[in-house]
Amino acid sequence: MSEYIEHDKNGVSVGIVEKKFFTTAVPPDLMMLESGHALGPVTIAYETYGKLNSAKNNAVLICHALSGDSHVAGYYDAADAKPGWWDIMVGPRKGIDTDRYFVVCSNILGSCLGTSGPGSINPATGKPYGIEFPVVTIGDMVKAQKMLMDHLGIDKILSVVGGSIGGMQVLEWSLRYPQKVISAIPLATTTRHSALAIAFNEVARQAIMADPDWNGGNYYNGRKPNHGLAVARMIGHITYLSDESMRHKFGRRLQNKSDFSFHFDADFEVESYLRHQGTKFVDRFDANSFLYITKAADYYDLEKQHGDGSGVKAFSKTSARFLVVSFTSDWLYPTYQSKSMVQAMKKNGLDVSFCEIEAAWGHDALRPTW
Amino acid sequence: MSEYIEHDKNGVSVGIVEKKFFTTAVPPDLMMLESGHALGPVTIAYETYGKLNSAKNNAVLICHALSGDSHVAGYYDAADAKPGWWDIMVGPRKGIDTDRYFVVCSNILGSCLGTSGPGSINPATGKPYGIEFPVVTIGDMVKAQKMLMDHLGIDKILSVVGGSIGGMQVLEWSLRYPQKVISAIPLATTTRHSALAIAFNEVARQAIMADPDWNGGNYYNGRKPNHGLAVARMIGHITYLSDESMRHKFGRRLQNKSDFSFHFDADFEVESYLRHQGTKFVDRFDANSFLYITKAADYYDLEKQHGDGSGVKAFSKTSARFLVVSFTSDWLYPTYQSKSMVQAMKKNGLDVSFCEIEAAWGHDALRPTW
Repeated sequence: MSEYIEHDKNGVSVGIVEKKFFTTAVPPDLMMLESGHALGPVTIAYETYGKLNSAKNNAVLICHALSGDSHVAGYYDAADAKPGWWDIMVGPRKGIDTDRYFVVCSNILGSCLGTSGPGSINPATGKPYGIEFPVVTIGDMVKAQKMLMDHLGIDKILSVVGGSIGGMQVLEWSLRYPQKVISAIPLATTTRHSALAIAFNEVARQAIMADPDWNGGNYYNGRKPNHGLAVARMIGHITYLSDESMRHKFGRRLQNKSDFSFHFDADFEVESYLRHQGTKFVDRFDANSFLYITKAADYYDLEKQHGDGSGVKAFSKTSARFLVVSFTSDWLYPTYQSKSMVQAMKKNGLDVSFCEIEAAWGHDALRPTW
Repeated sequence: MSEYIEHDKNGVSVGIVEKKFFTTAVPPDLMMLESGHALGPVTIAYETYGKLNSAKNNAVLICHALSGDSHVAGYYDAADAKPGWWDIMVGPRKGIDTDRYFVVCSNILGSCLGTSGPGSINPATGKPYGIEFPVVTIGDMVKAQKMLMDHLGIDKILSVVGGSIGGMQVLEWSLRYPQKVISAIPLATTTRHSALAIAFNEVARQAIMADPDWNGGNYYNGRKPNHGLAVARMIGHITYLSDESMRHKFGRRLQNKSDFSFHFDADFEVESYLRHQGTKFVDRFDANSFLYITKAADYYDLEKQHGDGSGVKAFSKTSARFLVVSFTSDWLYPTYQSKSMVQAMKKNGLDVSFCEIEAAWGHDALRPTW
């Protein structure tokens, strides 16, 4: 990481950062997945910020959500239009202070932004995996992060932090590697998806798979399923907002028109917003990765996997300190789900702080690019 | 209508009914639409139940929602598998008692179940309209119903009743033809769509239009956009349920499996349910009609059209009695929207009853096929 520090209008940024890559074992040393499949070699894209101290006890691991990447803060070069997705929180003298902490963020397994995923080359065929890529879980993502932390020589993590699907990874870290996690900060997340959350993901997946260009997941040499992926992203964006935030943000305002078009154009601003979000997304994200990551999120069930169905039993495995945060208007992962995990933690006598933040912006309240 | 009365396990049904058709003016006598376009001749499919009394003051008009039809109750023949969509409410000695009332229900303009819509033959070309069919509004739907009521010789309607988009028609009736509506019962509806409701409709429309088989709306002689329409319907079904109802109905139960498939099959029951709803829908509904009816719902703005933006001014035009009903868990048309219309009615000194029903089933609480 460069030492160059840049100032931007929001305050101090971490400045120029570099994306780095770590490749785990080469065959036949494969990573064993929860599904029973083996995968390898696995490449992990990551970035680090700040310095690991000599005691190696100032590491903070940030886990990103569905469409995030390792670029959590700063710029790649001076011409970069915008900084990493959580620059508002990560940097010198910011919430996660890179003057004090050694911050690590890696792209999750199954994604398409540097770490191995369905768009990566399958060494067995020399072609992209497509849906031959094994279905991965939140646990597998965390296992890959653990390999990275081992590689970096970090045995204990001061704090694992993340929101949404990143929050699931935080929870998983605390139970899968309880000796390694000193504190954990799961934000706007849940221990398992409700039927409603699964339903939204499933419809989004169906939108992708209904696109003929998806072609059974094998499209890397042809047209991409951009129409389907755009619809999937639009569905996601609705779930990130809220009735109230959409009323404030758009209401029934018309898009560049004094009256209705009486055609199927985008009449309302909210329609233009969604179309724009959908179109923008297909330029930077792989449809298959969307399928894999949403499936991993739907599969995640902390209670089942760690507590035979009991959250209290599950959290008996950790002694980490927790800060759990939810947002009042988040209807994707409502506060009652955070309260439920807090109760299970409390029943184990864990040191837990819980904060429900009054916010009209729904799941999007943190405002990163999830 | 036959006088044959059949009994079923839910009690008395209205028995065998017939679908009837009424065709309005033939060209050049065209129906003028709100968009300024002319349309005609317009065919309206309708059914009637019970008898119009000699004073012609016992007529009840039922307005259906998005995917409903004129077949509100009873069976077409003894072999019919199930009765009309609101048979639980309409029939002898039921809520809307066909021993006492003359019940009329017609398919809405723009639909595909008997009344003129985008799948109808355009007399100018001899081919289906497709998206050459003009965009219609809730007001146009009501205007067509008014022509039917004139045809039936009904000057005053004892009650206009309907839910969801049917409820918008009820409200529109009360303001467009205030002299003709004695009472109005809008259920689980709104005076104008929120940005959230528009957003869901827009994503559903995008799913249809993203399907290459949609082909610019011109698919009546080829493959239909079944994939897109199925996704659209799945989105709709999520909005009809609620977090709580989905938890009760599905939770995280797996579909015929003891564990995850680790493929992109439907693992969870909620996924199978949605896929089934999507697939079932494409057999009976036209994708273009879905576009037209959702657009009409998004355009509807009672305050703007009748009160220069003011609900109080809008409802000053009617002296109808109202019964407004909402459901606690309906997040598509939340109770606050019903309360807002009730307040506007009350400020005009209207005779209004308001009932918020405690129900976990979301917008689907009435359980008809919307």
